[in-house]
Amino acid sequence: MTAGQSIGTALLGVLGLMTVAASAQSDKPLTIRSQGSFFVGGETKTVSAPSQPPQDFTVNQMYVQFQQPMNGARHVPVVMVHGCCLSSKTWETTPDGRMGWNEYFLRKDRSVYLAEQVSRARSGFDASIINQVKAGTAKPDQLPGVLMASHQTAWTVFRFGPEYGKAFSDEQFPVQAADELYKQMIPDFNSVLPTPNPTWKDMAALGVQLHGAVLIGHSESGFFPEEAAMIDPSGIRGIVSIEMGVHHHAQAGSVGESGEDSDSRDVRRSPRRCEGSVRRGLAEQFQNLPTVRAAGEGRGRERPTDGTAEAWHSRQQPYADAG
Amino acid sequence: MTAGQSIGTALLGVLGLMTVAASAQSDKPLTIRSQGSFFVGGETKTVSAPSQPPQDFTVNQMYVQFQQPMNGARHVPVVMVHGCCLSSKTWETTPDGRMGWNEYFLRKDRSVYLAEQVSRARSGFDASIINQVKAGTAKPDQLPGVLMASHQTAWTVFRFGPEYGKAFSDEQFPVQAADELYKQMIPDFNSVLPTPNPTWKDMAALGVQLHGAVLIGHSESGFFPEEAAMIDPSGIRGIVSIEMGVHHHAQAGSVGESGEDSDSRDVRRSPRRCEGSVRRGLAEQFQNLPTVRAAGEGRGRERPTDGTAEAWHSRQQPYADAG
Repeated sequence: MTAGQSIGTALLGVLGLMTVAASAQSDKPLTIRSQGSFFVGGETKTVSAPSQPPQDFTVNQMYVQFQQPMNGARHVPVVMVHGCCLSSKTWETTPDGRMGWNEYFLRKDRSVYLAEQVSRARSGFDASIINQVKAGTAKPDQLPGVLMASHQTAWTVFRFGPEYGKAFSDEQFPVQAADELYKQMIPDFNSVLPTPNPTWKDMAALGVQLHGAVLIGHSESGFFPEEAAMIDPSGIRGIVSIEMGVHHHAQAGSVGESGEDSDSRDVRRSPRRCEGSVRRGLAEQFQNLPTVRAAGEGRGRERPTDGTAEAWHSRQQPYADAG
Repeated sequence: MTAGQSIGTALLGVLGLMTVAASAQSDKPLTIRSQGSFFVGGETKTVSAPSQPPQDFTVNQMYVQFQQPMNGARHVPVVMVHGCCLSSKTWETTPDGRMGWNEYFLRKDRSVYLAEQVSRARSGFDASIINQVKAGTAKPDQLPGVLMASHQTAWTVFRFGPEYGKAFSDEQFPVQAADELYKQMIPDFNSVLPTPNPTWKDMAALGVQLHGAVLIGHSESGFFPEEAAMIDPSGIRGIVSIEMGVHHHAQAGSVGESGEDSDSRDVRRSPRRCEGSVRRGLAEQFQNLPTVRAAGEGRGRERPTDGTAEAWHSRQQPYADAG
């Protein structure tokens, strides 16, 4: 087993945590070497309006909140990026009040960087088109289509049960706390973003800034680590894609040949990913990156038969420390 | 000096930190007894659209991120609420990379709760009107007026200098890092909120939940602690209002008779605050709450003459621990 496979195998072990109890829950104090927040990326946009001087705004910046444990140097840091209609809250205290993944990884001596997608939550977004439409200087159809996940959508996409309000008998998400999950769901303005999505570039830059990091994406952002690696793989030591719908060719190291998603209702994919010789050349540079994918979202109850199903609706697995 | 005055005096001592170096910067490890996040408030809104079943969304929830230090029980916790076009990033690492107020208070053995205003950042907001206007089922003038603070606005409102790009010779904000402040500025959707602002109720509820807290507001939210106290003062142990523009009658204990603001460009005040006998009755209940106000925002260079000026453009003051 190569070092890369070792990291991948170790990371696979944590995937079961997404919907089940965190075994490392601890009342022990948490000792932090350093914590804080900063931004990656961002550019200035100048907006002109009648009868006032042009105004400058910063757009496309990515907010990052981090904690480094005392022994964080032992391991490669992780960068966690939330999914559609969610924020970095995804990785914090669970809906039913248990420890989140951010603290879980910290307690395993791993530095954790929570990156908020460009256009979401503390990263902000470019809202100028809204004011322009209100003022009549732009047309209503120029407004972004805002993704808002309803309670009903969450119930089925996250596989709580066969229909809204009815849980699977062996469901592992704490459905009695579903209302707390719904509070995490916020408007998704990714449709205002330029192409390619600035989050991908910022994730690649963050990996370089950290001298190596494992990038973790979830659902909408499940393929973001791959996209980041296609921009610059030099700071990326591993890729974890959680619940990004059904993808074929999901073995470690295979990249960019995803098939049709069974769930494309509220998750937009990059068009024509990995096409063109330049991108193909880049993809070759990181085809041996440790890559773990956990399928599930939108799958319903049928167990996948394409080999991606190891973590599908999985029971909790022990966290094998490595990397 | 009463206990209340003691807390107020102690809190006044920290106000100088807003724009100057934090003296407690430390490379020592930070030991946390508990940390996490949760929501206060929130309600279900059902949205109907043609040819699909009604969908439920959670709106008006307030996201709260907290850390409790080992000796946090020694002191009353603080709840910090950011201002216009900002998020809880306000209280974290400064634009030039120094320790933020959240960690500063933690290192003084005080639990810190960062509350994100309802309709901002991780609290989310109700975006349904945007989709309705895009779909043609609502009119463009029903869109919210989105507050976006430009670089130019920040420069003058936060008193970096007499005109954009030119700093006061004795300016204490690290203007060389102004670009990093601009990245913190995000769209402000407070205009989509019902009246009264749900953040006020949620702040009052959080105070009760914490069995007592000092509420801190900044700029746009400078008067939020007062509004929270008028809803329910029982969980509020003190009020700190930072840079909320020019208010008359700003002595400790005086409430609700603020005069005209010199800066109302991007800060909306509650209309007719404190009017009506019911609210006046409530105000009487907390008129002895320790209250500290630091003026400044939008004042220009003239030193206030109304007695509110102690912390105006102040030099760093030592933090007197109390409360």
